[in-house]
Amino acid sequence: MSYHYLLDLALILLSTKLLGIATGKFQMPRVVGALLAGLILGPAVLNVLSETEFLTQLSELGVIVILFTAGMTFLENLFLGTVLTATSVSITVETLKELGRLDTKVGSTILAAALIDDVLGLIALTLVSSMAGGGDGLLLVLLKIVLFFVFAIAAACGGIWLFRLMIEKAHEKNLRRYPVFAFVLCLLLAYCAEEFFGVADIIGAFAAGLVVACTPKADYIRSKFEPLSYLLLTPVFFAGIGIKVELPRLTGTLAALSLSLLAVAILSKIIGCGLGARLCGFGGRERLQVGTGMACRGEVALIVANRGLSMGVLSQAIMTPVVITVVGCAVLTPILLKLAFHGQPEGSAAENDLAGRYHRAEQLEQVSDEMLRKRMK
Amino acid sequence: MSYHYLLDLALILLSTKLLGIATGKFQMPRVVGALLAGLILGPAVLNVLSETEFLTQLSELGVIVILFTAGMTFLENLFLGTVLTATSVSITVETLKELGRLDTKVGSTILAAALIDDVLGLIALTLVSSMAGGGDGLLLVLLKIVLFFVFAIAAACGGIWLFRLMIEKAHEKNLRRYPVFAFVLCLLLAYCAEEFFGVADIIGAFAAGLVVACTPKADYIRSKFEPLSYLLLTPVFFAGIGIKVELPRLTGTLAALSLSLLAVAILSKIIGCGLGARLCGFGGRERLQVGTGMACRGEVALIVANRGLSMGVLSQAIMTPVVITVVGCAVLTPILLKLAFHGQPEGSAAENDLAGRYHRAEQLEQVSDEMLRKRMK
Repeated sequence: MSYHYLLDLALILLSTKLLGIATGKFQMPRVVGALLAGLILGPAVLNVLSETEFLTQLSELGVIVILFTAGMTFLENLFLGTVLTATSVSITVETLKELGRLDTKVGSTILAAALIDDVLGLIALTLVSSMAGGGDGLLLVLLKIVLFFVFAIAAACGGIWLFRLMIEKAHEKNLRRYPVFAFVLCLLLAYCAEEFFGVADIIGAFAAGLVVACTPKADYIRSKFEPLSYLLLTPVFFAGIGIKVELPRLTGTLAALSLSLLAVAILSKIIGCGLGARLCGFGGRERLQVGTGMACRGEVALIVANRGLSMGVLSQAIMTPVVITVVGCAVLTPILLKLAFHGQPEGSAAENDLAGRYHRAEQLEQVSDEMLRKRMK
Repeated sequence: MSYHYLLDLALILLSTKLLGIATGKFQMPRVVGALLAGLILGPAVLNVLSETEFLTQLSELGVIVILFTAGMTFLENLFLGTVLTATSVSITVETLKELGRLDTKVGSTILAAALIDDVLGLIALTLVSSMAGGGDGLLLVLLKIVLFFVFAIAAACGGIWLFRLMIEKAHEKNLRRYPVFAFVLCLLLAYCAEEFFGVADIIGAFAAGLVVACTPKADYIRSKFEPLSYLLLTPVFFAGIGIKVELPRLTGTLAALSLSLLAVAILSKIIGCGLGARLCGFGGRERLQVGTGMACRGEVALIVANRGLSMGVLSQAIMTPVVITVVGCAVLTPILLKLAFHGQPEGSAAENDLAGRYHRAEQLEQVSDEMLRKRMK
């Protein structure tokens, strides 16, 4: 029996945490640290870690749990106007905070647009992954997606009914069954999405998260999935993406592709979102600010790319430019954003105060942490 | 990419939970339910689950986390006089409670003896697993074990020092790093135990648990490992043992071996512990009660057998008698225990009130659950 995987896991956890803390100090999202950890430990630099079947499947499970918990917080996000602190927009939020511009109309617009952006990304993923299944025409693919959502809604009604029944019947002491049954629902929906509808498993997991969010035990369940995620699955997933980067094979062509992809990623957002902002009546400078604020890519981009890789739609070689783009965007966004706001006096607070809700959500989280700390003492 | 493991995991979680609830209703430990779940889903009955590399490694990680968390609660157990509710003695405790005899001298003796029993089991495991490594003489094996404990103590001092430093330096908001670094310590000690000292990895994990228990954040860390354990790793481990049972191959010889093993397991405890009780001045009937109360085998027996299997010391075929013995003990212990107490008037409370401490620990757990529930509302 091999026990080398113990060392692998220890290295992944240690390096993602340490580099996450380090990138956090530079106002960059922790996910950049986790990517760098995988990149440094993997074949690209030190070559002490390589992909094993265990790590691959654990990281697959990781992305399922990430989407599942994202689904659980999604409705709350829509309501509170916050986005997951881990998503691509977190870096923009931190920069805007530093500049004292989060409470402006531009800040609120970026927050709302980033949320819609992530949803669009998931829809695109659903379509692309379904079509990559092979053979089926677009109409059949769309029909299968519609059928999946009918199935998911039926599963939702059944699941919520079952949860309410359990809560009525069960002794209040037996709380563990709620997270366990929620996880079963997540795994089953993920499996059925792939097996019967040709939809990506992570879309099934996301749908299961939405279902669980509608049950009375949603907060409790979410609190139990947090440690499962950060203690094991999330670090393995993001480090696993870093491991896929193969710097030695970074030929001139790939390097050029990486830089082009990075440029397209930033320019397309600045131009595209700028146009959208123009339609919404923003001024010239504000358009640039909104566009720059949206330029950063994060988890959703990585998840889509990783999915494309495992389906064989993207080649292994393309992961290097993707990771370089994500890291590059994370480094460039704060710089560009500061330039876009340079010399401008602080604006007035936005009328539709999305940023205020974001602050309140943050405060809520702090209060809840505080309570937990007191309880633990 | 295969996604069948999603269904595997869903089936394991669902069946272990449902059968765990069912066996719980019959006053049997939940681990019996988990074993039965694996047995029913595995090749023995329905044959819908088989061992995959992913499940095997996940269950290996499972037993490491089980021993790690056992280490974290071990010192507290010694102090509070409670034993893990999941250990073999839980079935005896439940039966004694039902009979109203937990607060007696016999009850306290069983609680204390069961704890010592588990420790002796771990020491035996250390010795056997070290010797099975091959080649080395007994003296060298003992030397390596001693060296491992010296190393573990050094790691403990280093680890505790690092934790205190982190707690001083770190912002109180960043609590996640404590469980992450604790897990890194666990994985590293487990790896080093195998790699450099030829000691079982789970002994390293147990030692890491003891170290973590000595840090100021022990309670917080333990609370984060609970969901990791019951949401994923523990069900996979125990169901995995059930999967190893091969009923179709249960020949007459193996069936006879199973029954003999079960008989030896119960009689050796009744006779051996009865002798011990006699040395401590217990009367004839009390000796029988103590011996019967100790007859039940649980996690430690399964962990040792599984370990022997993975080292190649035990053959696959032997798992069937082992599982039958564990399940059989769980079914027979309450019956025998009730017979042993039959017709006897309730005794006076013990002077050294270990059972009282056990009750207090249970109440503490309930209060803590209650607080959590309130917070979640």
